Amino acid sequence: MSLQSALVVGAGLIGTSVAMALTDAGTAVWIEDVDQGRARVASELGAGRTGRPPEEPDIVIVAVPPGAVGSVVQELSGIYLRCIFTDVASVASIPQADVESLGHDVAQRFVGGHPMSGLERSGPAAARADLFRDRPWVLTPGRESSQRALGRARAVVAACGADLVEMSPQRHDEAVALVSHVPQLVSSLTAARLEDQPEDLVALSGPGVRDVTRIAASDPDLWTGILDANASAVLPVVEDLRRQLDDVAAALATLASRGAGSDEQEQARASVRRALAGGVRGRARIPGKHGGRPTQFAVVTVVVADQPGELARIFAAAAAASVNIEDVTLEHASGHPLGSLLLQVQAGSVGALVEALSREGWTVHS
Amino acid sequence: MSLQSALVVGAGLIGTSVAMALTDAGTAVWIEDVDQGRARVASELGAGRTGRPPEEPDIVIVAVPPGAVGSVVQELSGIYLRCIFTDVASVASIPQADVESLGHDVAQRFVGGHPMSGLERSGPAAARADLFRDRPWVLTPGRESSQRALGRARAVVAACGADLVEMSPQRHDEAVALVSHVPQLVSSLTAARLEDQPEDLVALSGPGVRDVTRIAASDPDLWTGILDANASAVLPVVEDLRRQLDDVAAALATLASRGAGSDEQEQARASVRRALAGGVRGRARIPGKHGGRPTQFAVVTVVVADQPGELARIFAAAAAASVNIEDVTLEHASGHPLGSLLLQVQAGSVGALVEALSREGWTVHS
Repeated sequence: MSLQSALVVGAGLIGTSVAMALTDAGTAVWIEDVDQGRARVASELGAGRTGRPPEEPDIVIVAVPPGAVGSVVQELSGIYLRCIFTDVASVASIPQADVESLGHDVAQRFVGGHPMSGLERSGPAAARADLFRDRPWVLTPGRESSQRALGRARAVVAACGADLVEMSPQRHDEAVALVSHVPQLVSSLTAARLEDQPEDLVALSGPGVRDVTRIAASDPDLWTGILDANASAVLPVVEDLRRQLDDVAAALATLASRGAGSDEQEQARASVRRALAGGVRGRARIPGKHGGRPTQFAVVTVVVADQPGELARIFAAAAAASVNIEDVTLEHASGHPLGSLLLQVQAGSVGALVEALSREGWTVHS
Repeated sequence: MSLQSALVVGAGLIGTSVAMALTDAGTAVWIEDVDQGRARVASELGAGRTGRPPEEPDIVIVAVPPGAVGSVVQELSGIYLRCIFTDVASVASIPQADVESLGHDVAQRFVGGHPMSGLERSGPAAARADLFRDRPWVLTPGRESSQRALGRARAVVAACGADLVEMSPQRHDEAVALVSHVPQLVSSLTAARLEDQPEDLVALSGPGVRDVTRIAASDPDLWTGILDANASAVLPVVEDLRRQLDDVAAALATLASRGAGSDEQEQARASVRRALAGGVRGRARIPGKHGGRPTQFAVVTVVVADQPGELARIFAAAAAASVNIEDVTLEHASGHPLGSLLLQVQAGSVGALVEALSREGWTVHS
């Protein structure tokens, strides 16, 4: 379905971007904000007209902090008696409960939503119509939400070019605690350790700590609101993290006191290793940048003779076939003129590599 | 000074890369490894010859785990009676203590070193001669290290194109605990939370958690060794982190039990906000990608009339002058035809923006 008209309440980064995308999709859009200057900036950047539409819009997109969604819906549902409401807050349970407390007539007209885009910047100047393209947008229909409401909320997601995901408000909140809110907290606490350190020390920061702390630059007021609104889902994840940090701290204390018995040291090392290995497995669960599955590697084995320059020629042939070698192992039986070269490559490159090396006379298997 | 000859012990990512850089710089390089296949791969990729030089080299670069540096130096200092030793381990105090325990003659010939490059990949196939270019390389001279030793270690750093930094072994270990080892641990523990989660939940992962957990993919064995070797410097940072995590967990528990008094809720929110704000300040301490200072923003103020399209024209003029507007605020006195538009831009862009807007007739101040 297409939306004829929409009102966006709140001209922050998300509200302005939604308004831009809807405008581009041909919807007549109005945008308002308690700060009229912000609404005007948004409007001039392509987010529609400021103020409210002369007639009831098809949908109102409430782009305000989670704790304020209920009162905006309360006010506007008294003025617009048929239109649908959705929001773009980072948590779902509190807005859902607040709207349900307004009665069934309002609750059936509401479907919560959460476009999952970065929040490191804020304000209308950072807004872009394509902010949500190919990013997940979770709709969280409540028990009372009507099909009509769900249809219009889905139309907003489609107009923004986002990937539609649907789940219950509770499940959404548990999910974002894990994949967004706790990572934010952890990033902030890690960055906070550097606050009072001398210049020559922080100068040693490399790409690792830079990545871990990138989102620590996010707006503390915005994130205090999010963590407050999702405290009950964030808390169990934080408790779980604390338990594991306690284990690691105990293990480090054993390792630091080099006097401890070697069995105890061995157990402490195993405990640290378990924590790190769990991280490798958890990291492997995260989909790739464009929503694809994590890259899988495959091994191609080449029989090599003990001749100078042979490995260099194999690497050159792989490069000529545009195959990137991720890792390499040479297995060599001592005193034997032949060995096995194990080349680790992306699964999709196996065919090209086997063909390129076979053509040049090597014995290859994959 | 230039190095005539070098022996690299250990054909992992770091050892092979150093050997490649020294070879490129004209030094005669030999590389050896307990795994002869690895040494051969390294050699064929441009890391010099395998095995040991026929005569005593100018320097031995010990590229083995921190706990093994002492025994390698012990063996080779008995064969090579004059040459200098350096290492590339991620911690300095343990190798330094191990070498000092071998006596003054050996200790004066040793200067510890740590090239600070990423460790997310490993093995000789990932090695590159330019791995260390413009990255910090910390040398950690001990009390007994000779000037001759320091000179040769500096020559290795120079040949690799790295930025030389010098500090004591203890200070180095405290620094890397903060900017590398604790961020690694935190990244791993955050990623570990996702290990057993259902597919639809991890599918919501976005760029934030992806950045926070990128280094969680690093080799757990390598990192267990590093955390073990630096446990006494890592532990106090972890304890400090735990204390703040305890505070945040207590605040979240208060916020989750929505029954608590509103004063208590307010204090809990303030506690969460303090933690997040500390993260913003800590993050701002981290130098930019190329070692520069963090980007500083400046504000340019433009007097604007209440005319449609004026803001769009200002944004267009900024874009034409290649100035990126980071944030924008419109301050408007109600009922007044003039307002102030505050444009936040990179400090280096102020001049260009002021000139571009002034030329087109706007009243601008910065």
